[in-house]
Amino acid sequence: MSKVTPLSGFPEFLPSDRIVEQKFLDVIRETFELHGFASIETRAVEPVERLSNQGEDADKEIYGVRRLAADSGDDAALGLHFDLTVPFARYVLEHSGKLVFPFRRYQIQKVWRGERPQEGRYREFTQADIDIVDSGELPFHYEVELPLVIADAFSKLPIPPFRIQVNTRQIPDGFYRGLGIEDITGVLRIVDKLDKIGPDKVTEQLTSGPGLSAETAKQVLRLAEISSIDASFAEQVRALGVQHEVLDEGLERLTQIMTAANEHAPGLLVADLKIARGLDYYTGTVYETQLIGDEGYGSICSGGRYDSLASDGKTTYPGVGISIGVSRLVTRLLSTGLLKGSRSTPTAVLIALNAEEDRAEAMRTAVQLRSRGIPVEVAPAAAKFGKQIRFADRRGIPFVWFSTESGSEVKDIRSGEQVAADPATWTPPAEDLRPRIDTTQENQ
Amino acid sequence: MSKVTPLSGFPEFLPSDRIVEQKFLDVIRETFELHGFASIETRAVEPVERLSNQGEDADKEIYGVRRLAADSGDDAALGLHFDLTVPFARYVLEHSGKLVFPFRRYQIQKVWRGERPQEGRYREFTQADIDIVDSGELPFHYEVELPLVIADAFSKLPIPPFRIQVNTRQIPDGFYRGLGIEDITGVLRIVDKLDKIGPDKVTEQLTSGPGLSAETAKQVLRLAEISSIDASFAEQVRALGVQHEVLDEGLERLTQIMTAANEHAPGLLVADLKIARGLDYYTGTVYETQLIGDEGYGSICSGGRYDSLASDGKTTYPGVGISIGVSRLVTRLLSTGLLKGSRSTPTAVLIALNAEEDRAEAMRTAVQLRSRGIPVEVAPAAAKFGKQIRFADRRGIPFVWFSTESGSEVKDIRSGEQVAADPATWTPPAEDLRPRIDTTQENQ
Repeated sequence: MSKVTPLSGFPEFLPSDRIVEQKFLDVIRETFELHGFASIETRAVEPVERLSNQGEDADKEIYGVRRLAADSGDDAALGLHFDLTVPFARYVLEHSGKLVFPFRRYQIQKVWRGERPQEGRYREFTQADIDIVDSGELPFHYEVELPLVIADAFSKLPIPPFRIQVNTRQIPDGFYRGLGIEDITGVLRIVDKLDKIGPDKVTEQLTSGPGLSAETAKQVLRLAEISSIDASFAEQVRALGVQHEVLDEGLERLTQIMTAANEHAPGLLVADLKIARGLDYYTGTVYETQLIGDEGYGSICSGGRYDSLASDGKTTYPGVGISIGVSRLVTRLLSTGLLKGSRSTPTAVLIALNAEEDRAEAMRTAVQLRSRGIPVEVAPAAAKFGKQIRFADRRGIPFVWFSTESGSEVKDIRSGEQVAADPATWTPPAEDLRPRIDTTQENQ
Repeated sequence: MSKVTPLSGFPEFLPSDRIVEQKFLDVIRETFELHGFASIETRAVEPVERLSNQGEDADKEIYGVRRLAADSGDDAALGLHFDLTVPFARYVLEHSGKLVFPFRRYQIQKVWRGERPQEGRYREFTQADIDIVDSGELPFHYEVELPLVIADAFSKLPIPPFRIQVNTRQIPDGFYRGLGIEDITGVLRIVDKLDKIGPDKVTEQLTSGPGLSAETAKQVLRLAEISSIDASFAEQVRALGVQHEVLDEGLERLTQIMTAANEHAPGLLVADLKIARGLDYYTGTVYETQLIGDEGYGSICSGGRYDSLASDGKTTYPGVGISIGVSRLVTRLLSTGLLKGSRSTPTAVLIALNAEEDRAEAMRTAVQLRSRGIPVEVAPAAAKFGKQIRFADRRGIPFVWFSTESGSEVKDIRSGEQVAADPATWTPPAEDLRPRIDTTQENQ
């Protein structure tokens, strides 16, 4: 057997870091369920032809999957899914007769991409998606609702200040039309690079590429530079003097979103008119999310509206969805030291042993404590008490339970305090019952 | 795009069935954590050479994984894991310096096997494993503890009567030695077929293959036919008159297990001396679990002790583990109609709309209800009330919330009862708050 070596791009957590990831996943799932999203899971593989050229990330490298024992041409060509949208679209088509539309689903699963691994870019990672899909028509109000679900989840998580940036396809689309621009997608692609290459290079490319006049390029840039945490962006756009009915529609929609955002999630959403995330793929609102002060890391949660999530030739299914990059987010907060697990095990109480013969009695005590929801384990061996306490301490278990001649006692090994305790009634403080996420002071 | 067709062996649940699976996974996870097992997840892929010839199921067909864009020989040959034991062994070796031993871990993940699909045999399925691994030596008491954890989990799940069958390697081993049998593994392999081919064929094969005398073969059969729900199996074995110190050790160990089982999980464990599950792989206790009355479906939860889970040449890591076949179990109970989800969405309350203009107010009501842990969604459109109620009914949502001139009211759409309700205080009955698993009468 060869030596064990990590695989680049396939991160694995130690138990205390996994506890942090689990807490994130629990809060995300709980929030999605409170908002009425139903869970589904799709298989890890799809036919390669379904993966190719589908979805926002269609240029992502696909992992092919094949039985090693298969004869060539034995099976259909399969690949691991690279996002959760493409398999969801297939699921909707496959089960449309058994689903009730509009269908709200969440999906938390691993995805795989054969990209070159780097910080925040993995070959295997976890995404948490919500989508609302309808048959035929999808009302606009879902585009207002979706970022509020994300804001609700994030506001319950121990993460640094963040900003959900929102734009809508109709604003640049209508604005460019009003300016007489023909190559709308080409212009969007250049504007999308604004944060990376700066306004001068964007102006240069707008004039050289799609051949915009200097004044038109300037107007395009002015639009891209508008942002506001309320509905005031609309006035700024109108002040630029461009007129188009599609622009009016876009401004009206983004105003609705920002108005609802300011009521339900004040300060968390920003109307940001340079956000161009796959605007040739999305057809309405688009969302991106950045950690404030860590914008260079890129978006940790993105999505948008697409008029045709899926289509079977007869029926078209429009949808709106957002995907949280859970691995991206959690590994960033762990690697920068902002968060850590308060212990490396669920165990709150270690039952110490005076002698191996006491194990049966210790197991009875454990059953009593567990019946009231307290995670417990019995010591591995009747070693010296110092060794048993060290075993608890090394994993962050806060309490050690002892049997003494006068009854049982429990020691808080952090303070050293030891008190009499009845296994039928004793309960640890609520904050010690389960592992917590500890945050550094900068994040409190 | 080609037509959408299901992939044989890759089952997917509709939302209401997924709710059943989720409840099972939640109970299993909660039980594992109450017993102090820490969660880890390992990557889906391992080097093919690590998968080949490793683990109890080493003959299982492996799915190879390869970037479609890779040049030949570009990457190490990778395969999808076919169980959670082989990757866990690798994880222990890779992170041994950062783990505290004995290390108790649980792992709930998908695994993949390129087998021919059939009822209960899938190409992608979920397993839930617990293992305790130590460095150097692993105390026997963990072999007593592990099946009690499973019994605890299963006793909280809505499953039909089950039986955890236990045997220990030392019993047949010592018994066969006492009989002077040399080809112990060969005899075990034949005895393992007892349920399938019956005692006559087993006797025939024992005499023709390993060349046992008729009397020796009869003794082997007598041992295999012994089972008891308490420690009385030991007397039955001793009555056969065979003597060997390894047999004595085996009887002593299985007696300890059955004594603990009868205290903590009376009636759930059976000492069954024909259980030979991979006895050439396991080195101590072995476990299998069957649904009573559905034995032909095979084991839904199996495992055992292995002296060398992993080894890096210097240190050996013995372990004991059990794996619940969650997909096998859940799909069986769903397909036989024993269980179903009480609804197809987490939503407990649908907020009806009098008019689209009331959506902002409805969203405020939803926020109030959610803040107290009630899953809520707002109606898709201000359709006629009958249509809005039907939308709730089709997904099993029990309550619809109305705004009337005199205040808000909530209707239980099952009984038709409608009462005044304050969004700041109203709570549904506990049994309606979250989707439940409904069981058929035969299972109550």
